[in-house]
Amino acid sequence: MKLISGGVCAAKGFTANGVHCGIRKNKTKKDLALIYSAVPACAAAVYTTNLVKGAPLLVTKAHLADGHAQAVICNSGNANTCNANGVEIAEQMSALTAEKLGIAPQDVVVASTGVIGQPLNIEPIAAGMDALVQGLSADGGTAAAEAIMTTDVARKEVAVEFTVGGKTCRLGGIAKGSGMIHPNMATMLVFLTTDAAVSAEMLRKALRTDIASTFNMISIDGDTSTNDMVTVLANGMAGNPEITAEGEDFASFMQALNTVTVHLCRMIAGDGEGATKLLECRVTGAASLETARTVAKSVICSSLLKAAMFGADANWGRVLCAIGYSGADVDVSRVDVAFCSAKGTIAVCKNGAGVDFSEEKAKEILLEKEIEILVGLNSGDSEATAWGCDLTYDYVKINGDYRT
Amino acid sequence: MKLISGGVCAAKGFTANGVHCGIRKNKTKKDLALIYSAVPACAAAVYTTNLVKGAPLLVTKAHLADGHAQAVICNSGNANTCNANGVEIAEQMSALTAEKLGIAPQDVVVASTGVIGQPLNIEPIAAGMDALVQGLSADGGTAAAEAIMTTDVARKEVAVEFTVGGKTCRLGGIAKGSGMIHPNMATMLVFLTTDAAVSAEMLRKALRTDIASTFNMISIDGDTSTNDMVTVLANGMAGNPEITAEGEDFASFMQALNTVTVHLCRMIAGDGEGATKLLECRVTGAASLETARTVAKSVICSSLLKAAMFGADANWGRVLCAIGYSGADVDVSRVDVAFCSAKGTIAVCKNGAGVDFSEEKAKEILLEKEIEILVGLNSGDSEATAWGCDLTYDYVKINGDYRT
Repeated sequence: MKLISGGVCAAKGFTANGVHCGIRKNKTKKDLALIYSAVPACAAAVYTTNLVKGAPLLVTKAHLADGHAQAVICNSGNANTCNANGVEIAEQMSALTAEKLGIAPQDVVVASTGVIGQPLNIEPIAAGMDALVQGLSADGGTAAAEAIMTTDVARKEVAVEFTVGGKTCRLGGIAKGSGMIHPNMATMLVFLTTDAAVSAEMLRKALRTDIASTFNMISIDGDTSTNDMVTVLANGMAGNPEITAEGEDFASFMQALNTVTVHLCRMIAGDGEGATKLLECRVTGAASLETARTVAKSVICSSLLKAAMFGADANWGRVLCAIGYSGADVDVSRVDVAFCSAKGTIAVCKNGAGVDFSEEKAKEILLEKEIEILVGLNSGDSEATAWGCDLTYDYVKINGDYRT
Repeated sequence: MKLISGGVCAAKGFTANGVHCGIRKNKTKKDLALIYSAVPACAAAVYTTNLVKGAPLLVTKAHLADGHAQAVICNSGNANTCNANGVEIAEQMSALTAEKLGIAPQDVVVASTGVIGQPLNIEPIAAGMDALVQGLSADGGTAAAEAIMTTDVARKEVAVEFTVGGKTCRLGGIAKGSGMIHPNMATMLVFLTTDAAVSAEMLRKALRTDIASTFNMISIDGDTSTNDMVTVLANGMAGNPEITAEGEDFASFMQALNTVTVHLCRMIAGDGEGATKLLECRVTGAASLETARTVAKSVICSSLLKAAMFGADANWGRVLCAIGYSGADVDVSRVDVAFCSAKGTIAVCKNGAGVDFSEEKAKEILLEKEIEILVGLNSGDSEATAWGCDLTYDYVKINGDYRT
């Protein structure tokens, strides 16, 4: 398996596009994305656990009940959530897309991201649909990646090439992240495409298994969005024997999927709202996988630790504090903590108590852009990784006047 | 019952003092507080649920096993937590205090607040003890309130006068708050004193009942501290018939206690690290008390909402979002939201969807220093209030370099 350039158009048979249709006032910012498979594809998705669910998720869920889809339509600038007519608008988005593509509305995945609680006007979407569809191309993945961005600073796309049953397959994806990110059995807006042939059932299984260690392990701000969704479309055009059960082929597929999703996780966390640093908390020696995940996520979510990382302050007491209130059953007298970056690794806590360390060296390590927080629980063999970012002035700035 | 001036010395027989002994480098900041009752008092306390517990809490818990205490010693500048010799130092603090006061070490409540994981030197405490004890006076409550402050901007003390069995009683308290505040069956450092006669058992019951709706309903940053503790000492010097069971007298006492603790909660939340506003989320119409509390606390904890309040942005979608991910079983299609301050009240959401409102009026309301977020669930009769503060540049600044 190897990383290749591209995103949602890396796999055979997928085209995409992104345009500015007028949902956003800023005409230089694309706000409508389309991804299209030349042939019907198996499809799977996971959705936010927030009780307040964006209308597009309800419509998509109904459309994917049969495990198939052929296109994804997504706007940014408005979440189409908490609106009286949200479902109606999301259905109109699907219908308009289906009509132009000559497919069934039930084969359209529909998504929205942006402000909650403001009615979404269908007119700019209807007006932009011709240009969106006519511009579909195998080079359009980047335009689509740009069109789903909200407060994201960086575009997020990644793809891999791998082999299943002797056939070369590809899997790629795009993501939008940045704020209101605390996935819980769900995730950000992520659209994945592959030309591998995978049954709808195995695709669902692959996605559900993968997100537990990837998208569910990132947090920007502890706020689980109303519009989170990850979808994957598998159109089978690589020509491999369809994956219909566990085994070597499924394992290859899972590895490819995981490579892409981990890359997207790191991109989302590193580009969290206002972030200057990517934080990765790696927990080892846990008595159970559940404990490892709970501890890693608690550390990555601590506002105090996030602020300390922004200030490159080796305030490891906040790591211990976050472990202690995580709810996991941990023997705190066995906990080791170290900070790590391209500049080296420094141990700061052994057996739950501080050790002498060079503040100068710690500062040098923590001034880097990617920081690993290593937590050794010394109580078992399970491990987990969570991703997040620092808490900065810019997070406050961005969210102090997001709507206005 | 009426509010009176003062804090821990408002009740008969209590004296206090606060000095700079040298734990902090800044000589103008007091760092050691003492509260003393002329006679032995019944005592009760609640502690943090964080698995990482400050050594002073372990020692205090042992000392209060018999339900009695006569003095409180507390330092700021160092939490005495995650240190190899923490318990030993906390015991030395108790012993030094007891020796100077001529009481048993078991009758001393010991507490520490400040940086985690740095050994606490007993020498400045030992050196400062003479001045601390000699300076005890009925006017010393304010000095004690100052000596327990960390990043607090404002001193927190409050007291009330009330009647039990025909006798005038008083109850007062001091608190330190500001950061790492997310109480959970525990709370901040809060020291309460009263001259009412209350049995140790009823005092414990009163405290445990009260904190569920007061200190457990505040959050500054979602980080449950390692050193949280509330203690109450009741020395009986008011001369009322001892309260040993529920009834009218106990109800009067509970009302006095609740008045003091709600005042302290509002002071702690309004003086959260970097805060410019006190936020109060009042949930009504909940199907159960548990639901009301869960929803109120989820709203008050949302980083996104906190940042919006800093920006005086009526971004009510974030209120809905926080209700939706709270874990409470809520019918989101019935939720109403309004913002309220001294400038008026404005409805922004009805039945889970936005309503037209004047952005200008909303801005005027949200520019005030005390904001109420009113959430109507329209599903029952239970209600709850939670307190918090906005998320500001200064929170990031304070916590980006807290240690250094």
